[in-house]
Amino acid sequence: MRLSQMLWVTLREDPSEAEIPSHKLLLRAGYIRRIAGGVYAYLPLMWRVLQKISQIVRTEMNATGAQECLLPQLQPAELWQESGRWDTYTKAEGIMFSLNDRSDRQLGLGPTHEEVITAIAREMIRSYRQLPLHLYQMQTKFRDEIRPRFGLMRGREFIMKDGYSFHTNTDSLKETYNDMHTAYSNIFRRCGLKFRAVEADSGAIGGSGSQEFMVLAEAGEDEVLFTPDGNYAANVEKAISLPFPAKPSAFTTLEKHHTPNTTTIETMCKSLKCTPSQAVKQVLFQATYDNGMTVLVLVSIRADQEVNEVKLQNELVKLAGNYGGKALLALQIPDAEMMQKWAAKPLPVGYISPDLADDYISNQKNLAPKFLRLADRTVEELQNFATGANETDYHVVGANWGKEFTLPAVVDIRKARPGDRAVHDHTQILQTARGIEVGHIFQLGTKYSQAMNATFTNEQGEEVPLVMGCYGLGVSRLAQSAVEQSHDKDGIIWPTAIAPYHAIIVVPNVSSPEQMAIAEQLYTDLNQAGIETLFDDRDERAGVKFKDADLVGIPYRIVTGRSISEGKVEIVERATKATVNISIESVVEHLKQAVS
Amino acid sequence: MRLSQMLWVTLREDPSEAEIPSHKLLLRAGYIRRIAGGVYAYLPLMWRVLQKISQIVRTEMNATGAQECLLPQLQPAELWQESGRWDTYTKAEGIMFSLNDRSDRQLGLGPTHEEVITAIAREMIRSYRQLPLHLYQMQTKFRDEIRPRFGLMRGREFIMKDGYSFHTNTDSLKETYNDMHTAYSNIFRRCGLKFRAVEADSGAIGGSGSQEFMVLAEAGEDEVLFTPDGNYAANVEKAISLPFPAKPSAFTTLEKHHTPNTTTIETMCKSLKCTPSQAVKQVLFQATYDNGMTVLVLVSIRADQEVNEVKLQNELVKLAGNYGGKALLALQIPDAEMMQKWAAKPLPVGYISPDLADDYISNQKNLAPKFLRLADRTVEELQNFATGANETDYHVVGANWGKEFTLPAVVDIRKARPGDRAVHDHTQILQTARGIEVGHIFQLGTKYSQAMNATFTNEQGEEVPLVMGCYGLGVSRLAQSAVEQSHDKDGIIWPTAIAPYHAIIVVPNVSSPEQMAIAEQLYTDLNQAGIETLFDDRDERAGVKFKDADLVGIPYRIVTGRSISEGKVEIVERATKATVNISIESVVEHLKQAVS
Repeated sequence: MRLSQMLWVTLREDPSEAEIPSHKLLLRAGYIRRIAGGVYAYLPLMWRVLQKISQIVRTEMNATGAQECLLPQLQPAELWQESGRWDTYTKAEGIMFSLNDRSDRQLGLGPTHEEVITAIAREMIRSYRQLPLHLYQMQTKFRDEIRPRFGLMRGREFIMKDGYSFHTNTDSLKETYNDMHTAYSNIFRRCGLKFRAVEADSGAIGGSGSQEFMVLAEAGEDEVLFTPDGNYAANVEKAISLPFPAKPSAFTTLEKHHTPNTTTIETMCKSLKCTPSQAVKQVLFQATYDNGMTVLVLVSIRADQEVNEVKLQNELVKLAGNYGGKALLALQIPDAEMMQKWAAKPLPVGYISPDLADDYISNQKNLAPKFLRLADRTVEELQNFATGANETDYHVVGANWGKEFTLPAVVDIRKARPGDRAVHDHTQILQTARGIEVGHIFQLGTKYSQAMNATFTNEQGEEVPLVMGCYGLGVSRLAQSAVEQSHDKDGIIWPTAIAPYHAIIVVPNVSSPEQMAIAEQLYTDLNQAGIETLFDDRDERAGVKFKDADLVGIPYRIVTGRSISEGKVEIVERATKATVNISIESVVEHLKQAVS
Repeated sequence: MRLSQMLWVTLREDPSEAEIPSHKLLLRAGYIRRIAGGVYAYLPLMWRVLQKISQIVRTEMNATGAQECLLPQLQPAELWQESGRWDTYTKAEGIMFSLNDRSDRQLGLGPTHEEVITAIAREMIRSYRQLPLHLYQMQTKFRDEIRPRFGLMRGREFIMKDGYSFHTNTDSLKETYNDMHTAYSNIFRRCGLKFRAVEADSGAIGGSGSQEFMVLAEAGEDEVLFTPDGNYAANVEKAISLPFPAKPSAFTTLEKHHTPNTTTIETMCKSLKCTPSQAVKQVLFQATYDNGMTVLVLVSIRADQEVNEVKLQNELVKLAGNYGGKALLALQIPDAEMMQKWAAKPLPVGYISPDLADDYISNQKNLAPKFLRLADRTVEELQNFATGANETDYHVVGANWGKEFTLPAVVDIRKARPGDRAVHDHTQILQTARGIEVGHIFQLGTKYSQAMNATFTNEQGEEVPLVMGCYGLGVSRLAQSAVEQSHDKDGIIWPTAIAPYHAIIVVPNVSSPEQMAIAEQLYTDLNQAGIETLFDDRDERAGVKFKDADLVGIPYRIVTGRSISEGKVEIVERATKATVNISIESVVEHLKQAVS
């Protein structure tokens, strides 16, 4: 392609809308253009990158026997009502766009396709003889994000590869799941990315186990915890660890202390002369289920630890049935205003004890009459601990479970942290890294097939639900994450495999017939040899062209400058800026080797 | 691909949802699956067909210098308000799905992309030196059809190629428009389709000229009129012609006749003893503009002719400004109930004359106080004609313009018909054919660039609006239209270029190790030679497999039956059912030639 004929405009300044390097660079280098919040046009250069990634994904997916298809983006509400996800996805914090058609039927714009594919499977799959099967698609998805940001990282419209597999049993599922682990690893490797597969929370998708593929980059929204021995890596949302042991308590008898203005852990410990690991703190949450029921959750946790809200959320989802609901719509920490709505009398905030009495809750419809009390594992073994006295300005010390306080139901809802010891090997200390979640593979099991009655006849002649897996990969996010991982102060450094072009010919002076003639010949020869080549034939100053070439990030730059008088051109490698002068005749061969 | 491993289920019976052959066959042969009205899943076989078509489209588009990109499907309402199309597209009979995001901002789901691309162009194109430019994309589009039907023909979600070109002037536009004519012709030819390019109405897209590419098929929703000399072809919506001349009038003097029960042309003529070409009929329409204004339109036309509502609509769009509106929302023939809403007194329906008095219209806000009177050209030359007397049960004969009646404004709003004489050559008689509109190319001019202020600096240093063209091609519709054009009682007959596979190997008896061994070897060899081959290795009766192979429509079937004892296999051409027995060794070469 000749740059003079391409819609390509670069920006000198960082656009104000962009916060992270990759977003700035994609805008500045003319790859994308914002149309609305979280909604971007992919301009011709970007489209080439996306096509290259798609082709790598396609090849690796097909190699596993998966079959490409394309499912609708408009999805009938009825299917999501069958699976029980319509409300969770469209109400409250739900992220599915929904609309009514001219006959007032509700439709959702697909953020994911479990429901649609399960509806197809239940009609088409009848027998174990048709299994296993794996269908995938590459498609634009939609999410009504609360805060779309970072360009293609968290958009409202983005391109995904999503695949769904069907099996007779979990062994078969695990086989495909492992194949996907390999395929995804191949895809990321072939795209030239540094990545890590980590244990992950399965979130709203559900199922029994999942792994995320994280592209490592400082601007990543996700935190990964891992051990140096390479045997453990997990998203912090999912990570487990052993906290450092609590210091033995200095208290021996139960005492109540007047501790005004000590509503933070720091001031409390100072006042009581103890360490946070000797104290139990209470955190209050407010959960809302899809039937409108609000449940107040009182969590007790060691005061030096934090609650992992994702883990807490998963516990609350399990309890939905107890409250007559099916799905959890929202989990919040109530502020004063929210508390006022349900508190029968003012709460001793900052001094709450593990047995805060239920009569603090007013008697209302759709409000559970009792606190749901949960304790994190970290408090279970504590003895003679400090905690709130349930009275403003007072704490107690030397308290014990079974004496002063009843130990609530114990669950793991603690946030693992760098510095914690690994569970698999207590000598391994967790380290932290930032990552961009680009892939996520799930062992769904029968969650959707049971809800939607998608069964098959097994070898024994019984009707049983299909066992399912699902596998997502963010194609547009992958493209941007490559930039986030690979750039310098001058611009993008594309990995060759997904660069929009392999090479760019820069003619410093287009009014020189010699320079142009050589450039034209190289342009023809290179493209014929399969080296995808851009030709900067614009009538611009050489300095502008070099800057643009650095910005746009094509792996190899060929300059038909002064060296042509010696029969040579300059080749600059974008990543290293390494420069060689080579004879014009050997350019094609040189680049063929460089690119392969 | 082995059929035993593919998600593939054929149906013996025609599904009740399908009306036309191609829709029935795509469902029966396992290509598509209905998810909601007008919303289909493209199963793996269909996806291969769509990919093949896309690749042909891409090659031909790229060859013209057009650049592929991808624009958002979510489109902000503001852009459509700028162009003035938001109301027309979302209200009344509008076909754009719209929705509100979580911040209550309105978004449309793109049925077309003039607004988005013009918004990009006005930011990126500054100078004539950047022109001409042509961007295109292949993408799923959305239309909230009143009556989705015929499978992929008129869906609510479908795949389009849409391109937009930008120019300094109309000469440059026409050059690209002609290039597109050639590219589209190449695409249809390469896809193996019989097609015809016809003059077309530009409809809601607008602009100064457009052509449609019709795939010829009996089930086509469009009527095409053409002359045998090949010099004229047009969509009936747009077609012009000369009607056969009116018979000279038998009436010489003005008379009023009592003609009860003659509200149809047939009964009127019988009663008055005249032919329809000697009479003027009045047709009443009701037009609604985007500002809510209703206009009553009284059309006078020769009684043997019909009103072309598309032409009438275009006339009414031109008059929008006269009524304070910008766009026409609806054009209807009012029924009794609708008339009651505005009629000041009962109308002499069936006996209305060209000068129906304005006092039939009641005095209401948003209702134009006078009839808009329009006459089709066919009535201009009539003399001593018959028409309504404006009094129930009475007609007049021997009437003349300028005497009894005032001739309204004359326009061409007549529907051309087969049998009419061509305008370019009066000896050519229009013939009719049915077609499926698969492509439509438009010379837009400055309609969008002016409305949206998309200008560039021309060579003279002046800021002038960009001159635009746009070019649509229905990718999924093309796929189905190929089936509509090419099938027989047994199933689909794919043109080789867009068939999902080139060949299918059918093993009549999978328990025969000899048959399987030869089939396996051929399967490997053919795929390696680039002959895309399906392998029916299912444990089914031979008859079932042959029926399925015919249904699915793969061009060549290879049967490893009894002939293998002679070292031969049977090759059956799907289209002709011609059968040859050829030696196993020459199968690859034979098919290579057949496919190329």
